[in-house]
Amino acid sequence: MKVGRRETFNSAHRLFKPEWSDEKNFEVFGKCSNPNFHGHNYVLEVWIEGEINPETGFVIDLRYLKNVIKDKVIERFDHRNLNLDCPEFKGINPTTENIAVVIWNILRENVSQELGIEVRIEETRKNKVIYTGH
Amino acid sequence: MKVGRRETFNSAHRLFKPEWSDEKNFEVFGKCSNPNFHGHNYVLEVWIEGEINPETGFVIDLRYLKNVIKDKVIERFDHRNLNLDCPEFKGINPTTENIAVVIWNILRENVSQELGIEVRIEETRKNKVIYTGH
Amino acid sequence: MKVGRRETFNSAHRLFKPEWSDEKNFEVFGKCSNPNFHGHNYVLEVWIEGEINPETGFVIDLRYLKNVIKDKVIERFDHRNLNLDCPEFKGINPTTENIAVVIWNILRENVSQELGIEVRIEETRKNKVIYTGH
Amino acid sequence: MKVGRRETFNSAHRLFKPEWSDEKNFEVFGKCSNPNFHGHNYVLEVWIEGEINPETGFVIDLRYLKNVIKDKVIERFDHRNLNLDCPEFKGINPTTENIAVVIWNILRENVSQELGIEVRIEETRKNKVIYTGH
Amino acid sequence: MKVGRRETFNSAHRLFKPEWSDEKNFEVFGKCSNPNFHGHNYVLEVWIEGEINPETGFVIDLRYLKNVIKDKVIERFDHRNLNLDCPEFKGINPTTENIAVVIWNILRENVSQELGIEVRIEETRKNKVIYTGH
Amino acid sequence: MKVGRRETFNSAHRLFKPEWSDEKNFEVFGKCSNPNFHGHNYVLEVWIEGEINPETGFVIDLRYLKNVIKDKVIERFDHRNLNLDCPEFKGINPTTENIAVVIWNILRENVSQELGIEVRIEETRKNKVIYTGH
Repeated sequence: MKVGRRETFNSAHRLFKPEWSDEKNFEVFGKCSNPNFHGHNYVLEVWIEGEINPETGFVIDLRYLKNVIKDKVIERFDHRNLNLDCPEFKGINPTTENIAVVIWNILRENVSQELGIEVRIEETRKNKVIYTGH
Repeated sequence: MKVGRRETFNSAHRLFKPEWSDEKNFEVFGKCSNPNFHGHNYVLEVWIEGEINPETGFVIDLRYLKNVIKDKVIERFDHRNLNLDCPEFKGINPTTENIAVVIWNILRENVSQELGIEVRIEETRKNKVIYTGH
Repeated sequence: MKVGRRETFNSAHRLFKPEWSDEKNFEVFGKCSNPNFHGHNYVLEVWIEGEINPETGFVIDLRYLKNVIKDKVIERFDHRNLNLDCPEFKGINPTTENIAVVIWNILRENVSQELGIEVRIEETRKNKVIYTGH
Repeated sequence: MKVGRRETFNSAHRLFKPEWSDEKNFEVFGKCSNPNFHGHNYVLEVWIEGEINPETGFVIDLRYLKNVIKDKVIERFDHRNLNLDCPEFKGINPTTENIAVVIWNILRENVSQELGIEVRIEETRKNKVIYTGH
Repeated sequence: MKVGRRETFNSAHRLFKPEWSDEKNFEVFGKCSNPNFHGHNYVLEVWIEGEINPETGFVIDLRYLKNVIKDKVIERFDHRNLNLDCPEFKGINPTTENIAVVIWNILRENVSQELGIEVRIEETRKNKVIYTGH
Repeated sequence: MKVGRRETFNSAHRLFKPEWSDEKNFEVFGKCSNPNFHGHNYVLEVWIEGEINPETGFVIDLRYLKNVIKDKVIERFDHRNLNLDCPEFKGINPTTENIAVVIWNILRENVSQELGIEVRIEETRKNKVIYTGH
């Protein structure tokens, strides 16, 4: 049984490797490496896998999960510049893949170890990732 | 190969354990335990897993699946109060998780045993479950 | 220029005229008059029409509008039974049309008179209304 | 008869009045004025109003409209920082309202004067504007 | 007050003027004039404008409207080839604009004259029309 | 880690086995076997499974994937009649299941063998398939 919770956050970012030249960055990342940033309405779905608690009928209390997502993820990244404002992406290129890994690691520390975690992110309606952990 | 069919039903419900006090119910279930019920447009997706029949090109005849969902699921739960009108939830708290289990069990009796069944339910756009059976 | 804000609320309701017999209610309202209620994820869009304030670039401060909708509309109707819990529907059949009128009237008292108000409600993806006032 | 075309663009922006203090900016615009920008997947719908051409059955050739939107709007704003990269917003606070006016003006110069123009923009699924011209 | 009902139909069509050469057809209509047809999931919204009936709280009985749309529109066009199977398009190029006019005319004969009718059609998520009558 | 890309194409088709009588075809496929075809806005999602490249932060360059989908899939099937125009469906009934297999096979030849491929297709919002390969 998997239970999912959907939230959104709006951030600026830029795909960019500081050790590469601007030409190389543009060649690999195209307009996504424009120097003054662009941004997205990220859609985040967090899925928790486990057994139903027979007492409550819940796999996880969604109010708890909602608060974890709000406090630990949305608060940090919403209305922020992922490259400049967020130490979580220090040395990490904020591709959708890497954003999913960063968020999965944050959640792993805040959700009971018996429960599996899956992170799904839509950067746009056309581009999305699913990450279920190492 | 998995084939999915999407339907919706609109029901009233209330999260509530009769053996608990009202205070305990409110503490655990919050406004979802309001005594006069609230309701949702449930989105149900039924996914059937199996091999393609080389004759028809179908995993399952979607008209058959559609009729099973209509007759066995939608007819029972649509425009109903899950707590008061539906014996399937006698003694079962109608959380989205439990609704998925109830529907999965109904479908299991009406779909060929060679085919796998997965039930996905959205209670709201923000809260969802996936159940693939015991 | 019109500016819109989208929110949702989840309520139980029943279409029912107490002065009619059960048969007449069922004849006119069908399964929507089932005695134990059913429910919906209502989608509410509030549109405000006016001039752009040249200072701020806003027609209306959406944070103010969001708070009005939350405090005056969502708080009253979300996770409630419109027939039993909400005095606003005393003597008023909670059709989507009437819900739109009730909400429009609430908003009219909380939004500057120079601004026009339009209320859009989706009861389901298939059934919707737009109300722009008397 | 109105004909609509939907496109999207992804930009960074910040609500900010340079003649105001940072405190005043934050008081009026909240987290939308964060100094390092944030961003959105803007959804743009352009609606053209006119008569059906009896020869073609079109109000406007949508391939022409699509190219105008691509060349004159999307090319300028997609994967850009509206505040830093786009001279169209020089001295104009990039609220959704002002973005709609800027785009409407661009389109007005590129669409036949007999046709009406309406610009709809969604900044997020929750915040939207409609602009039909002065 | 406007009340809307959403339905869908799936049809094949081709944009084509028999009095034009194939070259002219291709020049004007592009790949939409491919000789063996293509198709769409058309989304139809019918909006009815009028006063709320104080007895029922309805502008129009949506069950009646639903049946009119099903019997008079969907039955005729769903899973059909608009060019070959549908006499309504004899001599009429099945552009989205013309489909809206044809459907509006059908509905006008089946809805009370005191009520206004608006037809909205999405050919794709990107291309749409709104028609409110002559 | 899985990365997904969403595209759409609009095609005509008909479910039909030439070795069956028209009656048998209608009995098995219903209105989907209407002789003059009908059509759909197919939604295609291609999901690629693999490791994140630590250099780029990508599982796969989505610009490459986008071009493969455009050139090898959309170009062949968009605005086409799957039964008449597409040799890929010679002797293959164009059910959604079979369309998924055909597209999966095309992609398999154009994506690095270390990467897994999953094809998801929505024929309509109600009918969908997921195919992950033999």
